[in-house]
Amino acid sequence: MTIRNYKATRFEGTLNQLVKDDLTVEEAIQIKINGSPYTVTMRTPGNMKELVRGLLYSEQIYQGQEEPQMQVEKVNDDGAVLVVDVIIDESLLGPGYLNERSILSVSSCGICGKRELEDLAVSGSPIPSKETIDITKVNDLFSKMEDHQKTFLKSGGSHASAAFNQSGALLTIMEDIGRHNAVDKVIGSLLLKEELGQALIILASGRLSYEIVTKTYMAGIPILASVSAPSSLAVDYASALGITLLAFCRGTNATVYSHPERIEKEKPFK
Amino acid sequence: MTIRNYKATRFEGTLNQLVKDDLTVEEAIQIKINGSPYTVTMRTPGNMKELVRGLLYSEQIYQGQEEPQMQVEKVNDDGAVLVVDVIIDESLLGPGYLNERSILSVSSCGICGKRELEDLAVSGSPIPSKETIDITKVNDLFSKMEDHQKTFLKSGGSHASAAFNQSGALLTIMEDIGRHNAVDKVIGSLLLKEELGQALIILASGRLSYEIVTKTYMAGIPILASVSAPSSLAVDYASALGITLLAFCRGTNATVYSHPERIEKEKPFK
Repeated sequence: MTIRNYKATRFEGTLNQLVKDDLTVEEAIQIKINGSPYTVTMRTPGNMKELVRGLLYSEQIYQGQEEPQMQVEKVNDDGAVLVVDVIIDESLLGPGYLNERSILSVSSCGICGKRELEDLAVSGSPIPSKETIDITKVNDLFSKMEDHQKTFLKSGGSHASAAFNQSGALLTIMEDIGRHNAVDKVIGSLLLKEELGQALIILASGRLSYEIVTKTYMAGIPILASVSAPSSLAVDYASALGITLLAFCRGTNATVYSHPERIEKEKPFK
Repeated sequence: MTIRNYKATRFEGTLNQLVKDDLTVEEAIQIKINGSPYTVTMRTPGNMKELVRGLLYSEQIYQGQEEPQMQVEKVNDDGAVLVVDVIIDESLLGPGYLNERSILSVSSCGICGKRELEDLAVSGSPIPSKETIDITKVNDLFSKMEDHQKTFLKSGGSHASAAFNQSGALLTIMEDIGRHNAVDKVIGSLLLKEELGQALIILASGRLSYEIVTKTYMAGIPILASVSAPSSLAVDYASALGITLLAFCRGTNATVYSHPERIEKEKPFK
């Protein structure tokens, strides 16, 4: 259940009436790893496997090919998962997990719980992809994403993320109360469908900050676009990590902040 | 420096031009407590004292009256603080700090790093304030906040929060790339000016989620309003903690989700 109905009083000037209003559900999930509490994340219920798989991958906790076993330990009355235990062979745990061992904690946004500035640094070879995108088609992708934003349509209060392939076909679209969660769910969904390598562009409904860029990098997706603004650090990292960052994508307008070599003005999707 | 200039390519359809664009600065700050690394938070530089004081207060790490000593240990070339050490008598550290001792970490959003669902629970007596607000004046408060959103005006990518007293006078307004940080800065600013008790209403530019409500509660502010949507949990906590929650405040419209007894339709500000 991604929305829940609440009673409220709606005012228009001094006129007011009692209304029933759909709100996006925000609820905590505890993720355990091999039986030990690992982190608690606020999220919108649904697509639990996608969220957990994507979060573990994008935070470098588990990047193995094999889908890890997830044991649901507790659900609420609505069927939303409250506690899930992920079983991962210890030898396959990544550097994101090592942080935790040294009394650091990792959560969905990729920052919180880190205690040293150095813990934030993400580095590696820039994404080498030479694929390009037709700037005039980007607006169509946002329209396709909006067509699938069912929770937002009812609540006006959820973020979305979607991935498309080189032909402009929608690979997956996910919604969540949290910007990072929507991106993690998309990455997890692509992993579960074994389509991560097909993703050319990922869209985000909210602002582009540091951690959205690093999650995109971990997923190896070369182009990242948002209707909203990027932060300074988002652009710095996108430049360094080989990601083409588009922001303020509104109607036929868009601003490209890094790696414009992937932008073709006339080239159609294949 | 809250904004930084970047080169970008702006597209309008296939027409494009090189532009220089102001982006909101996002940068990490490490907060130490008594010499030990405590947390790293992404934020927009500026108002460091307000951010740290408010964050420590709203997360129940330090809620003492006395302003704690803050030693700046490292700044970057722009003068932004990278590392600050806060000196606090150990006997005055609150339950938020105790979490950390048990291998939990606390960061600005009030969730991340927590590992048990129980760590999230905030409870206490509902805010008893019987003060009321004229619903027709709320729009004026948002206008006043917008008048002071200097960073947003230039970058389109920063959040704001502001507090007002019972007369509708602006007590403080703060901006940050992070929703939580803007609220923490407002709380810290009110603490530093010894005006926290005067705040009747706090405004937030972004969505209202669980942690914005709990921060408002910790600050003892009875009314919380946003232009954007609330989450389910935000309304649940506002109801339980005695906070009047207004959302979708746009023009003369607003929706009240909890404790409508503080809403006066005709009463002017004193």
